[in-house]
Amino acid sequence: MSRVTIAPEQDRLNAQIAFAIEIDKLKRVIRRNNLMDDSRRENDAEHSWYVALLAMVLGEHAPPGTDIQRVVAMLLVHDLVEIDAGDTFIYDPVAVAAQEAAEKAAADRIFAMLPAPQGQELRALWDEFEERATPEAVFAKALDRFAPILANHHNEGGTWRLHAVTASQVMQKVKIIEEGSPSLGAYARELVELSVTRGHLAP
Amino acid sequence: MSRVTIAPEQDRLNAQIAFAIEIDKLKRVIRRNNLMDDSRRENDAEHSWYVALLAMVLGEHAPPGTDIQRVVAMLLVHDLVEIDAGDTFIYDPVAVAAQEAAEKAAADRIFAMLPAPQGQELRALWDEFEERATPEAVFAKALDRFAPILANHHNEGGTWRLHAVTASQVMQKVKIIEEGSPSLGAYARELVELSVTRGHLAP
Repeated sequence: MSRVTIAPEQDRLNAQIAFAIEIDKLKRVIRRNNLMDDSRRENDAEHSWYVALLAMVLGEHAPPGTDIQRVVAMLLVHDLVEIDAGDTFIYDPVAVAAQEAAEKAAADRIFAMLPAPQGQELRALWDEFEERATPEAVFAKALDRFAPILANHHNEGGTWRLHAVTASQVMQKVKIIEEGSPSLGAYARELVELSVTRGHLAP
Repeated sequence: MSRVTIAPEQDRLNAQIAFAIEIDKLKRVIRRNNLMDDSRRENDAEHSWYVALLAMVLGEHAPPGTDIQRVVAMLLVHDLVEIDAGDTFIYDPVAVAAQEAAEKAAADRIFAMLPAPQGQELRALWDEFEERATPEAVFAKALDRFAPILANHHNEGGTWRLHAVTASQVMQKVKIIEEGSPSLGAYARELVELSVTRGHLAP
């Protein structure tokens, strides 16, 4: 409906605009964790903004040489596949395993909406994030894990309590943070231990 | 509450985490325009994600030499001042004029939460956006104006109808888009004309 054809050379822009309209749907994909004020659950679009800006703010805690602008770009696209595949609760191992194929199919569809080679470039950025094969992807994934721990700690247990998540489960995510950033990993570990001490998270 | 003091050298990280908790509030600042599916109004955090990703996708429509990564960074912080100052309806000239001082005070408070020189650097990025003095800021502002036009056109008039906005008012925003990108400006102009033709926007 919003497709406007001014001239044939506009095909590239038309494809980009169709993609722009499609990705608006990310604002309606709802995550498990709540906002910091516990008022409602967070959506994927605002989460993506949050972790991208965290990368800018916390970039100095990544290993030297990490390309933070690449981390930002990766985090801006990292959840687009959830438009089709939905959000997966990271503490549900069965759902996490089933999710992989659905996300790959979603990536095939969504990134292919863009003209070449742009679609392939953004798809490669998403693959890189998923594979955690570069320092940028390892740090990006660390931030993606750090944000909900910060929110749940701030919310006195938040969705950890709701879903009966235990500290040993959260500590597996802390390991992923430590791999991307020793200092953020140590900070997250303190938050988890403090949550247990305060009775907001089961040991 | 989420402040964890592991050691004095953690002061820098503690300040960054306090900032991270503060900026979560952007998810609760509500804008005038609706999502593309017209289901609800958009918030500033998801809008910020959207325009930052638009910069990546539409970057080739900026003048050659525009630093797109800088545009992305600018768009990630461009609305943070609205945590204190709130969203302003851009078609309300009285509100827009009153907003300036409130936004500057907000910038003084929010960016100063970060350690030096990081707070000053992000503040400078916000000043640059507001002043529209660089090609990056001109393009960033163009995208900030482009997104709601795309949504309102897609929503068959959307909040233009609700607030009795006219095409000549929207065309003033199209000029700002044209200054950042002739091709996106031409595209936005087509959208506005099409909306008038279809009876979704008053002439």
